[in-house]
Amino acid sequence: MDLLTVIGIILAFVAIIGGNALEGGHIDSLLQLTAFMIVIGGTIGAIMIQVPMATFMRSLKMLMWVFLPPKLALNETIEKIIEWSNVARKEGLLGLEQVVETEPDEFARKGLQLLVDGSEPETIRNILEVELATKEERDGAASKVFEGMGGYAPTIGIIGAVMGLIHVMNNLADPSKLGSGIAVAFVATIYGVGSANLLFLPMASKLKSHVQRSAKYREMVIDGIISIAEGENPRNIESKLQGYL
Amino acid sequence: MDLLTVIGIILAFVAIIGGNALEGGHIDSLLQLTAFMIVIGGTIGAIMIQVPMATFMRSLKMLMWVFLPPKLALNETIEKIIEWSNVARKEGLLGLEQVVETEPDEFARKGLQLLVDGSEPETIRNILEVELATKEERDGAASKVFEGMGGYAPTIGIIGAVMGLIHVMNNLADPSKLGSGIAVAFVATIYGVGSANLLFLPMASKLKSHVQRSAKYREMVIDGIISIAEGENPRNIESKLQGYL
Amino acid sequence: MDLLTVIGIILAFVAIIGGNALEGGHIDSLLQLTAFMIVIGGTIGAIMIQVPMATFMRSLKMLMWVFLPPKLALNETIEKIIEWSNVARKEGLLGLEQVVETEPDEFARKGLQLLVDGSEPETIRNILEVELATKEERDGAASKVFEGMGGYAPTIGIIGAVMGLIHVMNNLADPSKLGSGIAVAFVATIYGVGSANLLFLPMASKLKSHVQRSAKYREMVIDGIISIAEGENPRNIESKLQGYL
Amino acid sequence: MDLLTVIGIILAFVAIIGGNALEGGHIDSLLQLTAFMIVIGGTIGAIMIQVPMATFMRSLKMLMWVFLPPKLALNETIEKIIEWSNVARKEGLLGLEQVVETEPDEFARKGLQLLVDGSEPETIRNILEVELATKEERDGAASKVFEGMGGYAPTIGIIGAVMGLIHVMNNLADPSKLGSGIAVAFVATIYGVGSANLLFLPMASKLKSHVQRSAKYREMVIDGIISIAEGENPRNIESKLQGYL
Amino acid sequence: MDLLTVIGIILAFVAIIGGNALEGGHIDSLLQLTAFMIVIGGTIGAIMIQVPMATFMRSLKMLMWVFLPPKLALNETIEKIIEWSNVARKEGLLGLEQVVETEPDEFARKGLQLLVDGSEPETIRNILEVELATKEERDGAASKVFEGMGGYAPTIGIIGAVMGLIHVMNNLADPSKLGSGIAVAFVATIYGVGSANLLFLPMASKLKSHVQRSAKYREMVIDGIISIAEGENPRNIESKLQGYL
Repeated sequence: MDLLTVIGIILAFVAIIGGNALEGGHIDSLLQLTAFMIVIGGTIGAIMIQVPMATFMRSLKMLMWVFLPPKLALNETIEKIIEWSNVARKEGLLGLEQVVETEPDEFARKGLQLLVDGSEPETIRNILEVELATKEERDGAASKVFEGMGGYAPTIGIIGAVMGLIHVMNNLADPSKLGSGIAVAFVATIYGVGSANLLFLPMASKLKSHVQRSAKYREMVIDGIISIAEGENPRNIESKLQGYL
Repeated sequence: MDLLTVIGIILAFVAIIGGNALEGGHIDSLLQLTAFMIVIGGTIGAIMIQVPMATFMRSLKMLMWVFLPPKLALNETIEKIIEWSNVARKEGLLGLEQVVETEPDEFARKGLQLLVDGSEPETIRNILEVELATKEERDGAASKVFEGMGGYAPTIGIIGAVMGLIHVMNNLADPSKLGSGIAVAFVATIYGVGSANLLFLPMASKLKSHVQRSAKYREMVIDGIISIAEGENPRNIESKLQGYL
Repeated sequence: MDLLTVIGIILAFVAIIGGNALEGGHIDSLLQLTAFMIVIGGTIGAIMIQVPMATFMRSLKMLMWVFLPPKLALNETIEKIIEWSNVARKEGLLGLEQVVETEPDEFARKGLQLLVDGSEPETIRNILEVELATKEERDGAASKVFEGMGGYAPTIGIIGAVMGLIHVMNNLADPSKLGSGIAVAFVATIYGVGSANLLFLPMASKLKSHVQRSAKYREMVIDGIISIAEGENPRNIESKLQGYL
Repeated sequence: MDLLTVIGIILAFVAIIGGNALEGGHIDSLLQLTAFMIVIGGTIGAIMIQVPMATFMRSLKMLMWVFLPPKLALNETIEKIIEWSNVARKEGLLGLEQVVETEPDEFARKGLQLLVDGSEPETIRNILEVELATKEERDGAASKVFEGMGGYAPTIGIIGAVMGLIHVMNNLADPSKLGSGIAVAFVATIYGVGSANLLFLPMASKLKSHVQRSAKYREMVIDGIISIAEGENPRNIESKLQGYL
Repeated sequence: MDLLTVIGIILAFVAIIGGNALEGGHIDSLLQLTAFMIVIGGTIGAIMIQVPMATFMRSLKMLMWVFLPPKLALNETIEKIIEWSNVARKEGLLGLEQVVETEPDEFARKGLQLLVDGSEPETIRNILEVELATKEERDGAASKVFEGMGGYAPTIGIIGAVMGLIHVMNNLADPSKLGSGIAVAFVATIYGVGSANLLFLPMASKLKSHVQRSAKYREMVIDGIISIAEGENPRNIESKLQGYL
């Protein structure tokens, strides 16, 4: 559970809603269904036009990473790789055959299989790097979905506000409603700027961090697998992989 | 058919026009021919000054990709490449001669022809990479046409709005028309910001995704063709190309 | 003659001036010498502070490319290079000596001279790539002159508008002039935003396209010259150079 | 102690608060708890949603670098490396064993240990570069925490201001409070723009400078250690390392 | 003397101050000590928080480059390098010993000394490239000081303007002062936007051009020195170095 995300969301909303209440603003004046519909509907519509289906679906799946980050136990993985290198030293690369079946991480399993197949180190690196790049691009594109929404929301908020102001301007005859009309129009701005800066943009950045951490983790796995293929001694492998921590 | 694009456009327009209607705004007050003429005419004019003819024409052709994305059957292509590598193993590279004639994808056909001609792997890579880069640059530039329009539209909307405000300011003597005058001026802003954020920018991004997918597809084809030229075994080729999925 | 530029300029101005007229605005209210003086004088001043003399002069020369793009006959050049490779095959590299004298393009001529001198392929590549990079940087910097002007014009337009508003605010005593005063102030905004988005920025982009096309053309010439130096067969050379189209 | 930071903060606040006082503004009208709560609470909340816990904690630790920059004695380190190379020349790489124990800098110590272990130069470089990259990414991400806050603060200031304006608009009936209501609303803008431009963004840049200096320092250490491993003569090593000053 | 800078500054100020005067604005209404104090004090304060001392001092030294650009006689340097290569051909690399002492440019002198010492071409390249990169980073960072000021000035101008508006809003009771109060507040905007766009940003760009030119010059020197070390013939060296012009 990503505590920081939870605390951050609570803190931001308490600060802003609470601050508004202390200033004497009523929460009612900030709740407006049409503004919500314009900003959220417009933003989701824009992002659907923007991305291919696969990226859109992937971004929905990745959304939970904001609260439940993917587990990447770098320390344990280093220990596992050292163990594999010991197995390979004692029993030869074929000794890793049993390990392949029990390894839960799909990426490491592919690397181990290539080791067992006796592929050249250079070949293993090529194959694994293509896979790393593909996964990183796919997840990077998905994390940009929220960045895109963070870009559209404020401008669509402005569209909502300007439409509201047009409505007000067309009814200037009744000045008593001028103030509340403008107030209603401004709510769309708050929804746009607020959703972008308190949800979409920070979430996109957190997802991007996880994508980079995963890529780093996979780079470490590649480095370890290649070192085993090249028959480096376990102590050197440990020394190198420690650098990733 | 790219359903996401269609749903996105409908969702965005329903949300914004519907939201406006619910707030009590009349659709009439958002329909204005002169504002449309200023924003769209100015934006198209600006982009024509911006890009060379070839890029402009290419962007018009690529526009349909927003609704009908180019088909890139990666899975089937991997199967085809494995088949080619089996043919090459059994009959030699010359055995691919018949395949060349029936291969529908122009890029893969060029690669196959180079294989049949017996070119060196390094030569094949060079030739195909030049072609990949040229195509990627051309289509990338064309997808930036819509990005450029998304940049110009809001600023030209502002020009339209300011011209409208100047007109209003010069006729302050009749305050009864003040409100509706300002309302009219604001419509240009909505056209500019709206067309940019609900059409031009998301479309440019979708096209860019397709350009990147095509480049990725061609990289995979190059990788496969080179592997055949180097006589790698089909199982390794499959393992490597799977990484592109 | 770059028709797209001409049509674009006409379309943009007709749309904006015409739209304004249809809305009932007088063209007179958009013509203001002092606003023009502030925006254009300030923008040119800022760009003169920004760039070295050589870049400034180069940008003036390149300006005509917006209407008369540099001619880069890629197809004909490929034919010429194939011809050269045939000459080199039959008569040896020294056979290219006469070609050197008649080749109109200075860059290709330098490459041919290096071939005739019998320089190593690697040396030829180094020498020509240094020249390509120098020319590309020089012209790229010159095309950024207009990008810089497109950045300064709107902000200087704002300076002009705010100065106008200050003038208005200091004379609030006479409210009858309030409207027309504000109108006058706004014209500077239109000049700034308009000149940037309808002239400077699109022109900078078009020049940048030509700079990239020229670099691409020179890359192709290098590729061709090197292939001749390495004695590749004309058919392969053609196959490779076709990739640049 | 980073004097420039201290003088900068004092200068900025004296200039702005003093300038405001000279214009006749009361400091009271700039002190507002609710605006402070909205802007700072919202900004901290947003950044907590944005970054992983490790990055957040690291950024808090790095914050003191703004006042107490990390000590990187490049000159002394060059002298130390020359000394090590002399030791290695006279006593062999094993002679560095005692040096390892007394070297205070963890990074240099790891490099020395690899030298003593007799690792290949290429292996040493790989291991140290992985470590350098990991440290640089970690600290770079941490310095971007403040850049992120500098991005959120002004937009959250705008949310605060617009909420204030909505409150004012809903109470237009009492025009005597209009002015002071707007004034209160504007304070949130000042907090947002001010905290971003006088604290968050400049601090982020200063931290980024320190991160780059540390990376440069570590590159120099790698260069020195590798040169010792390759047995280069001390004079050449000095000549090369001087280039880092 | 950089005439373009001088003419640019004069042109920009004449256009803006003159344009304002022609519009009927008094220069007095643009001269305001407190606004100047807020904008310039705040901007300098922010930049002091932003950069380390060494960068700050270097930027002050480089400031004069705006008017007196560093002299980089590329043509003469090519002639000198050709001469050196002739000396090296006739008398061997040791023949360059006298040249080292009289060479005024520190960077070229270091390269010559390495030649005389008989270092390997690869070693010379490494040593000189480290020095080039260090110098380029240092001067690049210093030129970004003014870019930073150009970023802070407009936002601090907005702080000044909003503080002025708050002051006005708190004194709405006396509407006769409303206009002049707002006018005073706007002056801070002009100082911020003006100093950024007419001084800081263009100066930063000019300095960056000089930094790039210096790096290019040093690249050429490295290329020449390496060519001498590799014993290339003077004609080829000239042909290559001409590419830098």
